[in-house]
Amino acid sequence: MRNAMNYKLIGRIIGFILIIEALFLMPAWMISHAYHEANAAFSILKSQIIILLAAALLVLVTRDAKHNYYAKEGLVTTGFAWIAMSLFGALPFYISKEIPSYVDCVFEVASGFTTTGSSILSNVEAMSHGLLYWRSFTHWVGGMGVLVFLLMIVPLSGKNEGFTLHILRAESPGPSVGKLVPRMRQTATILYLIYIVLTVLDFIFLVIGGMPVFDSVCHAFGTAGTGGFGVKGDSFASYSPYLQNVTTVFMLLFGVNFSCYYLLLLKRVKDVFCDEELRTYIAIVVISTLLIAWNISGLYNSLSEVLRHSAFQVATVISTTGYATTDFDQWPAFSKAILLLLMCCGASAGSTGGGMKVARLILLFKSGRRSFHENLHPSEVRKVRMNGSVVDEKVMKSVNGYLIAYVMIIVVSFLAVSLDGFSVETNISAVFATFNNIGPGFQAVGPTCNFSAYSDFSKIVMIFDMLAGRLEILPIMVLFSRSTWKKN
Amino acid sequence: MRNAMNYKLIGRIIGFILIIEALFLMPAWMISHAYHEANAAFSILKSQIIILLAAALLVLVTRDAKHNYYAKEGLVTTGFAWIAMSLFGALPFYISKEIPSYVDCVFEVASGFTTTGSSILSNVEAMSHGLLYWRSFTHWVGGMGVLVFLLMIVPLSGKNEGFTLHILRAESPGPSVGKLVPRMRQTATILYLIYIVLTVLDFIFLVIGGMPVFDSVCHAFGTAGTGGFGVKGDSFASYSPYLQNVTTVFMLLFGVNFSCYYLLLLKRVKDVFCDEELRTYIAIVVISTLLIAWNISGLYNSLSEVLRHSAFQVATVISTTGYATTDFDQWPAFSKAILLLLMCCGASAGSTGGGMKVARLILLFKSGRRSFHENLHPSEVRKVRMNGSVVDEKVMKSVNGYLIAYVMIIVVSFLAVSLDGFSVETNISAVFATFNNIGPGFQAVGPTCNFSAYSDFSKIVMIFDMLAGRLEILPIMVLFSRSTWKKN
Repeated sequence: MRNAMNYKLIGRIIGFILIIEALFLMPAWMISHAYHEANAAFSILKSQIIILLAAALLVLVTRDAKHNYYAKEGLVTTGFAWIAMSLFGALPFYISKEIPSYVDCVFEVASGFTTTGSSILSNVEAMSHGLLYWRSFTHWVGGMGVLVFLLMIVPLSGKNEGFTLHILRAESPGPSVGKLVPRMRQTATILYLIYIVLTVLDFIFLVIGGMPVFDSVCHAFGTAGTGGFGVKGDSFASYSPYLQNVTTVFMLLFGVNFSCYYLLLLKRVKDVFCDEELRTYIAIVVISTLLIAWNISGLYNSLSEVLRHSAFQVATVISTTGYATTDFDQWPAFSKAILLLLMCCGASAGSTGGGMKVARLILLFKSGRRSFHENLHPSEVRKVRMNGSVVDEKVMKSVNGYLIAYVMIIVVSFLAVSLDGFSVETNISAVFATFNNIGPGFQAVGPTCNFSAYSDFSKIVMIFDMLAGRLEILPIMVLFSRSTWKKN
Repeated sequence: MRNAMNYKLIGRIIGFILIIEALFLMPAWMISHAYHEANAAFSILKSQIIILLAAALLVLVTRDAKHNYYAKEGLVTTGFAWIAMSLFGALPFYISKEIPSYVDCVFEVASGFTTTGSSILSNVEAMSHGLLYWRSFTHWVGGMGVLVFLLMIVPLSGKNEGFTLHILRAESPGPSVGKLVPRMRQTATILYLIYIVLTVLDFIFLVIGGMPVFDSVCHAFGTAGTGGFGVKGDSFASYSPYLQNVTTVFMLLFGVNFSCYYLLLLKRVKDVFCDEELRTYIAIVVISTLLIAWNISGLYNSLSEVLRHSAFQVATVISTTGYATTDFDQWPAFSKAILLLLMCCGASAGSTGGGMKVARLILLFKSGRRSFHENLHPSEVRKVRMNGSVVDEKVMKSVNGYLIAYVMIIVVSFLAVSLDGFSVETNISAVFATFNNIGPGFQAVGPTCNFSAYSDFSKIVMIFDMLAGRLEILPIMVLFSRSTWKKN
């Protein structure tokens, strides 16, 4: 018999997560203090106290939590943890009144943690530095995962490798999560170290190019998490071509599976360059950039400008970051069609990017091809291979299940946000942009606009989409399943 | 070892199909003659002679065709037969110069045979009666299938039940084709008899309502095949509410699995009303009609008018017919979103309608639900059930494969037609409307517009989509597969 859900363990971990969130707010408070933003600093402090009180309550109540768990607990913990982070992380914006509506505050912070980058702000420059920093920092910690961070610093228990694995699986993007090293805690540490080094590198390149230090910090966070929040209303349009190109490169780098970097550290260069997903990812980027460059060649003055805008926008969409150097909503239909498809494609599994993930698309393509051949030769049995080895049928089944759930969520969300009466193109791109964690869409939610005009109902639907997209559906869907909540 | 493709058998059957096509043109010639349309009558006669000559050549050359075959031959035959029918069926329009461009002619006739109903005509009323009749008749014969018709009248060989089955499978809509009776020829005959009776009933109801006989014939054909070609520029807008309601009912009836009617004839009423697909189909129709009625209630004068337009448009889209009583492109976003989704949903398996088919959606939903549960309880093995019995895993796999191929074709087509520079909404709806065999889309291809503004390249892409949609992908995809054409 299956036992009831271990609520205490779930509550305890969420308590820990909230403690970490309160600590993460410290630098934001210090920055507000340094910039003499009294209101923002005081609001952040108040939020920290509220969050710590809630966390202390949770941790105290769940002192006697037992460490028995199932896959379900890992999923439910992850789902609730992200919802709690968003609800509490929204407090500084709400208390400071820099964003008056609480739904908008949650939208903005969920958009941050899920590395979406869709904003309801019409005047970014009016925000305080402390809250702009917090907004960008949510991208950074959301990119690699807060639970993964917790796993890295706190040994939850000596014996719970299994639980840890379930959480890592639930929070990490991609069809199947490989452990880099046998112990999960070490895996989490290696991933975060690579992440920190790449982020610092990006920051250094931006500062060298003359970007102010504050802007560089925020943009390095936004790029690393493939988020997209910036500090200016025109995103990257007013920065120099050098800064735009640096960001193009780093957006693409953060869209690569981090285990590739680990393999590079181990000097297994050949393994990296034979990786099917990496090769496909590069091919998609190059082909899309060239097609768009050909399509928009009449719109800009020089070939280098055309290529710069084309490469930047391809990188920003496929990595699901969401910065922009130009109003791509004004581009011709063919370029917009490519961008719309890249939105769904997304970056690599095991990167900080969102979307379907290139690995999943490869598996889906191979699954479709196999189904085609089996229809012609019903007696032959074929295996799907990836990087030379046979893919487990369980993985194939779950990839197919993912596609079905993916399409269903898009359909229902599209229908729900259509109630607000915007155009079909606006609604489709808004759902694509939030569910795939991109940021801006087309028309009324294009790069020069924002999501504030949608109703609260639509915003809640899109908050759900952002969370479901970032956590790859299952940890959020499980919260809505009747079977999760019934006893026994 | 596998033998090379049996080209002679394929050629022979296509020869037979062309003979039937030439004979099918006879009534069109007679009607043109009766209406004193000399040019049209002469063009139809010329076309008949050309088609018969080509057919005679094919049948003579393939006299010694052997009756050995594989699943592949059935698919390739079906694919080529439909292409040949479209290329030759376009001749009367081209020779009469009523449609000057040959690509447009093929588009119009392929749209007819595939029961799509997308038109490139800007002035339907200017066409001759003979060609209007031919245009509507292609819907009727395309709805049930020309090859099925051939199987009904010609015993291809005493021993080739297997080949016949492959062709019936390739031409009939739905995830799995059940034989009604053990012998395929009898199954084909039963299906056509039900089809003829329902068509005649529709015709009688239209004539009773005061529609001219010629219009009634054309509309009965268009409704029966769930096609959508009419005889007026404004489709059904100028007909009486009675005629519109009759058409609503018959469009829905032709979207039901024909084996339900067969079961009714056998008095197995309970089996019919417990059918999961039928219940879901009815539920979708009722819910969509009510939601749209609520959404558009401010646009019309009375509740009955609201319900009439709402029900008609839901019926026309879910049955993939494509008539219109009002310019639904002007409806609010929510109603358009519902129609867009109904376009993909489509009618029932084993009906004359297109789209994904309700049965397939049910299986996909169940497959997704199973995948969800297996993720939570990895050790449990679940079976998918439909109408009480376990669905073969092969069917489940092929349904998943279908979804992948479906999405891939939409993606590639959307990209291709985007080159013409129309809006994203126009392009998406054009691809949905042709691939799902609906007819009109939104904006530049809405109910008051037509497809003539697209380039020849886009039209060829959409001809491909119409054929792939009608034949459910496989028989057309197989023509593009390298493995089909390699020796051994």
